Amino acid sequence: MLSLTALIRRSAQVNRHGIATQFEGRQRTWPQIADDIARFAAGLAARGVRAGDRVALLSFNSDRFYTSYFAIPWAGAVVVPINFRLTTEEMAVLLNDAEPVALLIDAHFSDRIDALRRAVPSLQTVVQILGGQGAADTHFDELVQSAPMPDAGRRDDDLAALYYTGGTTGRSKGVMLSHGNLVQNVFQNLAMLNYDQGDGVLHVAPLFHIGASVNEIIFTAVAGRHYFLPAFEPTAVLTTLAEQRIQRVFLVPTMINMVLNHPQVSTFDLSALRTVLYGASPMPEAVIERARALWPHVQFVQAYGQTEASPCLTLLLHDQHEHHLRSAGQPMMGVELAVLDDDDQPLPPHQSGEIGARGPNVMQGYWRNEKATAETLRNGWLHTGDVGYFDEEGFLFVVDRVKDMIVSGGENVYSTEVEGALYRHPAVLECAVIGIPSEQWGEQVHAIVRLREGHAVTEAELMDYCKTLIAGYKCPRSVEWRREPLPLTAAGKILKRDLRAPYWENRARQVN
Amino acid sequence: MLSLTALIRRSAQVNRHGIATQFEGRQRTWPQIADDIARFAAGLAARGVRAGDRVALLSFNSDRFYTSYFAIPWAGAVVVPINFRLTTEEMAVLLNDAEPVALLIDAHFSDRIDALRRAVPSLQTVVQILGGQGAADTHFDELVQSAPMPDAGRRDDDLAALYYTGGTTGRSKGVMLSHGNLVQNVFQNLAMLNYDQGDGVLHVAPLFHIGASVNEIIFTAVAGRHYFLPAFEPTAVLTTLAEQRIQRVFLVPTMINMVLNHPQVSTFDLSALRTVLYGASPMPEAVIERARALWPHVQFVQAYGQTEASPCLTLLLHDQHEHHLRSAGQPMMGVELAVLDDDDQPLPPHQSGEIGARGPNVMQGYWRNEKATAETLRNGWLHTGDVGYFDEEGFLFVVDRVKDMIVSGGENVYSTEVEGALYRHPAVLECAVIGIPSEQWGEQVHAIVRLREGHAVTEAELMDYCKTLIAGYKCPRSVEWRREPLPLTAAGKILKRDLRAPYWENRARQVN
Repeated sequence: MLSLTALIRRSAQVNRHGIATQFEGRQRTWPQIADDIARFAAGLAARGVRAGDRVALLSFNSDRFYTSYFAIPWAGAVVVPINFRLTTEEMAVLLNDAEPVALLIDAHFSDRIDALRRAVPSLQTVVQILGGQGAADTHFDELVQSAPMPDAGRRDDDLAALYYTGGTTGRSKGVMLSHGNLVQNVFQNLAMLNYDQGDGVLHVAPLFHIGASVNEIIFTAVAGRHYFLPAFEPTAVLTTLAEQRIQRVFLVPTMINMVLNHPQVSTFDLSALRTVLYGASPMPEAVIERARALWPHVQFVQAYGQTEASPCLTLLLHDQHEHHLRSAGQPMMGVELAVLDDDDQPLPPHQSGEIGARGPNVMQGYWRNEKATAETLRNGWLHTGDVGYFDEEGFLFVVDRVKDMIVSGGENVYSTEVEGALYRHPAVLECAVIGIPSEQWGEQVHAIVRLREGHAVTEAELMDYCKTLIAGYKCPRSVEWRREPLPLTAAGKILKRDLRAPYWENRARQVN
Repeated sequence: MLSLTALIRRSAQVNRHGIATQFEGRQRTWPQIADDIARFAAGLAARGVRAGDRVALLSFNSDRFYTSYFAIPWAGAVVVPINFRLTTEEMAVLLNDAEPVALLIDAHFSDRIDALRRAVPSLQTVVQILGGQGAADTHFDELVQSAPMPDAGRRDDDLAALYYTGGTTGRSKGVMLSHGNLVQNVFQNLAMLNYDQGDGVLHVAPLFHIGASVNEIIFTAVAGRHYFLPAFEPTAVLTTLAEQRIQRVFLVPTMINMVLNHPQVSTFDLSALRTVLYGASPMPEAVIERARALWPHVQFVQAYGQTEASPCLTLLLHDQHEHHLRSAGQPMMGVELAVLDDDDQPLPPHQSGEIGARGPNVMQGYWRNEKATAETLRNGWLHTGDVGYFDEEGFLFVVDRVKDMIVSGGENVYSTEVEGALYRHPAVLECAVIGIPSEQWGEQVHAIVRLREGHAVTEAELMDYCKTLIAGYKCPRSVEWRREPLPLTAAGKILKRDLRAPYWENRARQVN
């Protein structure tokens, strides 16, 4: 009974006059956007898109991304949002895994059409959704002339979307999320967040990422006003929030930091803003403290989760920040969360283990990848790949990725903890801690360090410094110096897999 | 993945020190109540209660009602709340339909134990949950000494409860509500109501009724503080709300009216109160207007629904009262609502028809009653038995019960509209309008009227008065005078079925 498209239909029923989307001066009301979706879906169907088919979406944030995201399931098909930061070759790998029949593309990617057509044989149609038609087969403006089709009526266990994971720890996989998965996570969020019908929301984090999709679907459910920025730029964010009197926004921590560093930040009128949801990567304490001080009327809410959980698992509410700033928060309603031992039994507070999750928001599995599905969904738990622990109050602390944890002389060493110690040294600009092979310890703690310009420190000095902060067995046994920035994923996380690779050639690391 | 008991487990995880229940000086924290539930469930299991078994619950509101309500599904069984206003004979009819293996009973009903045991052969155990053990087989205090059992892990489509309907229009039926049904309706409510963890709630409407269960389950989900009053009494309600600084309460309209009429109502400090949810019967405009004026800081929210929908379908939010006071509100998120024609096709705004509903909160069916299930759940819709219409803004107006609607000379006449006209006459104390057989019109509009003491009016005067307010074909063609009060259901609704019966003996009325 739950579906993405039912949310659209209800919002058009209960909010007849309110703005649904606004982008570059183009406004649509809720009945208008529902009509656009039904017409564009009919146009896609006329082009051969059938129930269950995959349709890829390669676009910056815009009202056309939004319309496409809901028109695809309205036609009964499965939306495959594509990370636009990938190379054409990388995109082709994902697309040949998903095998979409159609590609919906905006003007920024028109020059990729020919290459993608050649590389992806399943593609039958390329639809330009914004900008000139160029090499595409047809255009949004043409398809939206179709007579509206009835909602295909997908629901609950029907596949709604394939989101390809960032792949910090291996090949990218297609996460299968059903209509029920995505809508349940919206309800889980709304049960704890006090959002109101008609609230304005700014979409500035890229909507191909599930972290940004959350607000896209939530504010569809609450019949809100959607504003879009195609790219992140601090002045544009502040201007749009102020001028449109927007109440809610999702930002990743680096975006919050850049907005706070805007020289005129305090001159913008953000009195309408009420909630900043943040997540997707760790939040430095100094940043959140500055943000809270600058905007005391705003509620800051941290979400922790992953694509496989549609995506939210815990929330740290505003009032919980004071005493639990370093926590990821508490399990959301309808989510069962446990820290698991090696036999998948729940551990007591303060013992670390892999974080396991259950709930109606847990994915159906990985697309055409039974092996990875069986490894991740086993014994009734989603294995998140994150290591963490609970405190006595039921607050979750995430300490590392399982695959980044180092087992040295039988002791678990969390790479993030060692990195935290290194970062406190004034000479350290950037660092990553990995496990490398060791005859004596199995793995040994190894640091890769980039120094600030004009600073110098020796390996021995850095090791001694660490010993003043953390236990000796956790301190690096070896340091490697870098001058260039460390390799990052598209989501801005350090690619430790690539850093480890040269050390483990021809050797089996238990998790790689 | 969704279950009543998972809500208990999460609340014990996230609210370690807060009060869960308070009744007559006895307090339990969330970990304590979860432990009580796991122990009491183990005691029930030791007494032979198995997964899928029905367990009846006959009790005034108390912390023991609450503990029982969740311990029964914790043991895997199905809770059957019994309307305590029924006669023993009426209870026996329901119980022999449900065939419970155990009966949980409080001190107010101890004197019924022997009669119920004789009348209900399926009963193996009677457990006294409050007061002396008397004729019961065992007592809560004994069973709660058992070692705690793990949650039986019922979920989603597993049957959680049988609620017997009030039966204004026929034999009482057991409404089968699954764990998913009940929990989904909680999420649907919480998506629109801004409740917070730890909020206090007063349970004063009887918890055997699904209208009161809503808050019981919602404030289990939000790990709130539950307070209980065994019976409605205005002074006790006002005192408890004030002294315990309670934020939320569900009241039926007659309760609100009686509280407002309390001579010292304005002397109680209700500054903590933030939401009054009301519903289950129509709210007179004068009452809600007085309530809003007296407590301007309180949000009043009307819910419309029925047991078959677990139960809420629409909400009228506080800010919507001003322009839509006579409406039942808008469809909740995740609920699909339509006004249906005779072919179950949705009608446009302002056309009346039967209200149909879809959603994850719609019941599984009627217990052991395939015929009634097939009549009610057909063509993909729950047929609510209510007649209503939408306005252009998506607000629902409920005009009558389908079975109370009169078809006279091919025109639909809504009994509630005619009653509304009659009630405006100063001599009318109580009235009911029904359809009786007519050679000429098929049915004719017939009024049953009880006059105020010291007032007099003739049949012709009353008919003429009606003609000044409503169309002629809607006005009564005949009036019947009563001195005694009209017959009521346990829920306080007029029993029109009984009023119609003498007129339709040996005749077939299409809906009876």
